[in-house]
Amino acid sequence: MKKIAVDAMGGDNAPQAIVEGVNQALADFSDIEIQLYGDEAKIKTYLKANDRVSIIHTDEKIHSDDEPVKAIRKKKQASMVLGAQAVKDGKADAVLSAGNTGALLAAGLLVVGRIKNIDRPGLMSSLPTIDGKGFDMLDLGANAENTAHHLHQYAILGSFYAKNVGGIDHPRIGLLNNGTEATKGDPLRKETFALLAADETLNFIGNVEARDLMNGVADVVVTDGFTGNAVLKSIEGTALGIMEQLKTSIKQAGLRAKLGALLLKNSLYDLKNSLDYSGAGGAVLFGLKAPVVKCHGSSDAKSVYYTIKQIRIMLETDVIGQLVEEFSNRGD
Amino acid sequence: MKKIAVDAMGGDNAPQAIVEGVNQALADFSDIEIQLYGDEAKIKTYLKANDRVSIIHTDEKIHSDDEPVKAIRKKKQASMVLGAQAVKDGKADAVLSAGNTGALLAAGLLVVGRIKNIDRPGLMSSLPTIDGKGFDMLDLGANAENTAHHLHQYAILGSFYAKNVGGIDHPRIGLLNNGTEATKGDPLRKETFALLAADETLNFIGNVEARDLMNGVADVVVTDGFTGNAVLKSIEGTALGIMEQLKTSIKQAGLRAKLGALLLKNSLYDLKNSLDYSGAGGAVLFGLKAPVVKCHGSSDAKSVYYTIKQIRIMLETDVIGQLVEEFSNRGD
Repeated sequence: MKKIAVDAMGGDNAPQAIVEGVNQALADFSDIEIQLYGDEAKIKTYLKANDRVSIIHTDEKIHSDDEPVKAIRKKKQASMVLGAQAVKDGKADAVLSAGNTGALLAAGLLVVGRIKNIDRPGLMSSLPTIDGKGFDMLDLGANAENTAHHLHQYAILGSFYAKNVGGIDHPRIGLLNNGTEATKGDPLRKETFALLAADETLNFIGNVEARDLMNGVADVVVTDGFTGNAVLKSIEGTALGIMEQLKTSIKQAGLRAKLGALLLKNSLYDLKNSLDYSGAGGAVLFGLKAPVVKCHGSSDAKSVYYTIKQIRIMLETDVIGQLVEEFSNRGD
Repeated sequence: MKKIAVDAMGGDNAPQAIVEGVNQALADFSDIEIQLYGDEAKIKTYLKANDRVSIIHTDEKIHSDDEPVKAIRKKKQASMVLGAQAVKDGKADAVLSAGNTGALLAAGLLVVGRIKNIDRPGLMSSLPTIDGKGFDMLDLGANAENTAHHLHQYAILGSFYAKNVGGIDHPRIGLLNNGTEATKGDPLRKETFALLAADETLNFIGNVEARDLMNGVADVVVTDGFTGNAVLKSIEGTALGIMEQLKTSIKQAGLRAKLGALLLKNSLYDLKNSLDYSGAGGAVLFGLKAPVVKCHGSSDAKSVYYTIKQIRIMLETDVIGQLVEEFSNRGD
């Protein structure tokens, strides 16, 4: 039985969306057990009876504007902290939250803890491509600064993830850079390029540019946390901006355009869905001793469901156990 | 009379698109004189007679895959190099090319030369916002590495540009960062934040996130060349990817969706145009002694026309003369 601790109180739509996602996951996957941390009365309003779910009541929770490290240290009884603590104590195998990202990163690092020989766990997420297959990218902002050694570790982490969870035999690893030629980039990129090229366990395909990410140029893209954060937010901002602009343009146009939009509804809906990409699950703080996974703050029940599905595959394949083994042989 | 040197041979649609853009600009602006560098016979095929245009024939040109610095040093008679040389020799006031970006940057630095006390000219371009006003961002990749001092200079450069060319009285300067709080970022961002906050000549509004760029969160956004390049390419790639995906989705859907797309044609066209944003002109290698401006390689006549219009305003307002004056007082 896979035991998943869920922070029922994190995110804009908590606890309703969280609990409804949990209901669906319990119905579909008979090999999971869920521990819901949060306000028992509120959780019960939405929870369907199931003998594989339990509620651990707490009044405390972390707010989206709480200072992350301070919140983790002071609010020992917060739903998110209790979930992380359950993992540390061996009562749960993974933890999921849609709450304060910084706080979840801090809880992951301070409570769950790093895999031995992994220096800086990275935030990894699947991003959409035109062909619908998607790719995994890290670090998306768990760190403000990274070394080439960290980026090399991200390549290994991403490779294991794409293989185990994505089912890709020899995941193509790309290094995000300002040009595709091997000589491109700042010293960090040049040093990382050399490390990746020298590691024969990796299917390193060289430098990739941000322009080609949506074309599926690689299965895993590694970069430092500052750049990854900027790229992720640029993609999100552009996608949202375009959808907004299209909406405005249709509104301002006449009846003709409105009719057109109505006829195109399914196509526009498909587009929105493919950009949303919540079907791939949440963002993993990868490099920790257990899956610590972040759902988007605005997650609906569907996103929560898919994130539980993702965690289930991570546990099923024991990708983290494999990483522990791998990095025990890669000590510095 | 404003004298503009134009590389007639650079870009995918040269010389036709270049010459046709020049024709239009000469017709609209009576205070400009154009020098066209390139293959005289080919240029003449498209050029409309005008006593304010001259052709300087050369057989040599720089190709898109030429190694930039080497090309500039070896191909002394290339159309791009002759254009830059004309600026250096005082025969032209500015140079425009749609050719090899790296080579134009090298020609700018090596032939035209930097303004005194400006360390690292930055590549600056106007990017689209939802409200159609746009914003200016630099460095978009002229440099692979930058210091806080460089970023401070970019803020001054961008502020002068937005004021003079954009007509904005007190341009809002934002620092691209991984969060809006003043304490965010790596050491480079923290150091830059302090320099910008201390400079009372700037209307510094603090950190901005890539997610908010399209919402017009600032008039000028400064960042290092590596991040700027990644952000620019992420925006371009996402916009292209979405348009591609929408097209595919419409094609795969039935007649109903196709009819919808037909009715929506104008709105979709508006959207494409607003993302294209060539109306704002080309990318300026800013910090040089004269305007050195790059049109996109795929530029059509319209883009070339708008870039000439942009150069004309830069010359009219003497924004570069003002910068020379400003930086003569800011020597280190």
